[in-house]
Amino acid sequence: MFKKILIANRGEIALRIIRTCKEMGIKTVAVYSTADAESLHVKFADEAVCIGPPPSNESYLKISNIISAAEITNADAIHPGYGFLSENAKFSKICEEHDIKFIGATDEMINKMGDKASAKATMKKAGVPCVPGSDGIIELYEDAEKLADDMGYPVMLKATAGGGGRGMRAVWKKEDLRPSWDSARQESKAAFGNDDMYMEKLIEEPRHIEIQIVGDAYGKACHLSERDCSVQRRHQKLTEEVPSPFMTTKLRKQMGEAAVKAAEFIKYEGAGTVEFLVDKHRNFYFMEMNTRIQVEHPITEQVIDFDLIREQILVAAGVPISGKNYLPKMHSIECRINAEDPYNDFRPSPGKIVTLHAPGGHGVRLDTHVYAGYSIPPNYDSMIAKLITTAQTREEAINKMKRALDEFVIEGIKTTIPFHRQLMDDPDYVAGNYTTKFMELFKMKPQEEI
Amino acid sequence: MFKKILIANRGEIALRIIRTCKEMGIKTVAVYSTADAESLHVKFADEAVCIGPPPSNESYLKISNIISAAEITNADAIHPGYGFLSENAKFSKICEEHDIKFIGATDEMINKMGDKASAKATMKKAGVPCVPGSDGIIELYEDAEKLADDMGYPVMLKATAGGGGRGMRAVWKKEDLRPSWDSARQESKAAFGNDDMYMEKLIEEPRHIEIQIVGDAYGKACHLSERDCSVQRRHQKLTEEVPSPFMTTKLRKQMGEAAVKAAEFIKYEGAGTVEFLVDKHRNFYFMEMNTRIQVEHPITEQVIDFDLIREQILVAAGVPISGKNYLPKMHSIECRINAEDPYNDFRPSPGKIVTLHAPGGHGVRLDTHVYAGYSIPPNYDSMIAKLITTAQTREEAINKMKRALDEFVIEGIKTTIPFHRQLMDDPDYVAGNYTTKFMELFKMKPQEEI
Repeated sequence: MFKKILIANRGEIALRIIRTCKEMGIKTVAVYSTADAESLHVKFADEAVCIGPPPSNESYLKISNIISAAEITNADAIHPGYGFLSENAKFSKICEEHDIKFIGATDEMINKMGDKASAKATMKKAGVPCVPGSDGIIELYEDAEKLADDMGYPVMLKATAGGGGRGMRAVWKKEDLRPSWDSARQESKAAFGNDDMYMEKLIEEPRHIEIQIVGDAYGKACHLSERDCSVQRRHQKLTEEVPSPFMTTKLRKQMGEAAVKAAEFIKYEGAGTVEFLVDKHRNFYFMEMNTRIQVEHPITEQVIDFDLIREQILVAAGVPISGKNYLPKMHSIECRINAEDPYNDFRPSPGKIVTLHAPGGHGVRLDTHVYAGYSIPPNYDSMIAKLITTAQTREEAINKMKRALDEFVIEGIKTTIPFHRQLMDDPDYVAGNYTTKFMELFKMKPQEEI
Repeated sequence: MFKKILIANRGEIALRIIRTCKEMGIKTVAVYSTADAESLHVKFADEAVCIGPPPSNESYLKISNIISAAEITNADAIHPGYGFLSENAKFSKICEEHDIKFIGATDEMINKMGDKASAKATMKKAGVPCVPGSDGIIELYEDAEKLADDMGYPVMLKATAGGGGRGMRAVWKKEDLRPSWDSARQESKAAFGNDDMYMEKLIEEPRHIEIQIVGDAYGKACHLSERDCSVQRRHQKLTEEVPSPFMTTKLRKQMGEAAVKAAEFIKYEGAGTVEFLVDKHRNFYFMEMNTRIQVEHPITEQVIDFDLIREQILVAAGVPISGKNYLPKMHSIECRINAEDPYNDFRPSPGKIVTLHAPGGHGVRLDTHVYAGYSIPPNYDSMIAKLITTAQTREEAINKMKRALDEFVIEGIKTTIPFHRQLMDDPDYVAGNYTTKFMELFKMKPQEEI
């Protein structure tokens, strides 16, 4: 087993990893930027090394500084957390070259799954369903028409250079294809100087449902059920839950098997997540694979009585997994509490936390690196806490979340607590009736109406 | 279901009950003494009524004030928590007379189980093993000798008026009985003016292991496994755990069946605890029954995914139980954090909490009514928080407790956090090798040695 792990991250995930290391009797090294000197991950680690100032490319992304920190402290492994260098193939390789175990995917695996096109090609080979579409750029309109006929409508036209919805057209019937093709190309040409187009099947009422997997060093993988992450704002997840209210036993079995197949096909080692889009007919399509721990991993831990960070460390140390899959025994919901003003378009709200009172009691878990008196630096992600409730049913977990949000006091900054409190009362959310489009329609009620 | 419940208690248990009521959509009324105006149970309840000043017999024990508070707020039920009026037969009866449901035992049941002699007689009738001994006072020495011969040595001689160990003698062999009998009587006569004696079998290396039970209004009961509460100081529990490290599958089955038999014999309704002494040979003897929720109930909740307060409310509302018993699926430990100085003979340390940082993360639960800026009044019990950790094994739960205790910051007062931290490193505790005598030998290491 590792003697000392350096955590190449900050915030709640750095603290999360330190906690498990302590429980396993493994020493820890925190690294931090000058903006994070007062963070709890620095206080709770056995050692801490300053690796530079913000922004991140001067510190948390600066590979040489992190490797130096590991070498001077004699760390024999590095846990990258999520974000930053967690899916950086070069960093994984450099760790290996320095004989420091990278607790994550190998550079080869990251390269294979990091690029969307190559990941999709690999998954196709593995027999995992992918969103049907063109193999890259469509040169001629006639080819587009033929493909759309083959796949069936609706389809989505996308400019390869597109972004922010520009150069993108949903096409619901054949007679609309030609005008959409022309206008999307024009738009993309004007905006990006490039009118290359590709086409995908349009996923109706899509849900983002991901499967947690763990693979060991011996080619075996298992799944740990799903997480529904459909409540997103600009592709940022806001809240997640397991089980998905849209899930069926049959679909879980199918998606779980597909995810395990994907992991075993690439001999995936470590904890990973296979993200799928699920349409209203319960067809599911591979979207991408995250070769790291996810922000929302605690809800999985809650429903299967499992410490995923511990599992990552064990697998990295060469411990084999049992191979059995895990099904959710409870219902768990996570709300990401961000330092943002939900009444003002979720504008970031860094600053000093004057008062903090954490909710507690039965079925409540809080993962946070902040405390009363802590100043949230403006340099990083705005997430300051993850509030997780767990109960026997979805209704009870929602009710528990409501009362926990009501107890949660953070003064001095704005937070997304009021957003989550309103979400928990939203009839569609309560009915489990939401897709990735949910937030496009969600409107905050003014403060005084609550 | 009840519309509004008045909580006739204070501190963490009042808050605990309010939380479950909120989750069930039931309105709550807090009552409070003038010393508790700033307590969280007052802030988090829907309504709050001041019922008088400290001491408790002017407020939390003042039945007329509590009934008045229930009547003016239209509460249709009262939850008494633990302590105070929770096992007061008169209060239970008065609630009933006022058509307010008492969420606890009936006056008849409290009377039956509240008096130790009557409880023991009832349990004997039910066929539950009790500590063998004399039926009340032994008049003649010859009768004492005969009984000791019948039960077998060792035996315990006890003065009925005794207390603090005075008038009490452990007798290990026949030739010591006479001198012990004489000296115990003399001692009791001198100390209490009374030399009445009774005798019990001496329980060797006793452990305090209790069984949680729930009975419904239809005469059915089930058990929810045990809690080991042997780590006590002057009969005050300090830490509890489930499973008991001394437990076997066979013993749990026997004790569980005995507890269910006890509950069903008296048609017990509600949550209750049957306390047993278990000797080193794994013989178990009924000690007493608590007809209320226990301080240490959360560890049971953690290992069987059950909300015991919710269950109390459901049963009180006439919902039948399934009747199945529950076995522990995890290991859970509770440390009672008291405002006491463990380096100074656990002397109470009331006062203002200047800083509070709560531990969190995977497998950590905290139940507390205090917060930074809160002043602990000197009038009440010194318990200010219950820290609970849960994991798949005992070793992991202990390691989790260590890191949670290390994270827990309470400044401004002394607390028992350092005691628990040392306890978690004690070789006998870690080995699960402890009895109710454990604390007589435990010595705090000086602060600087840690």
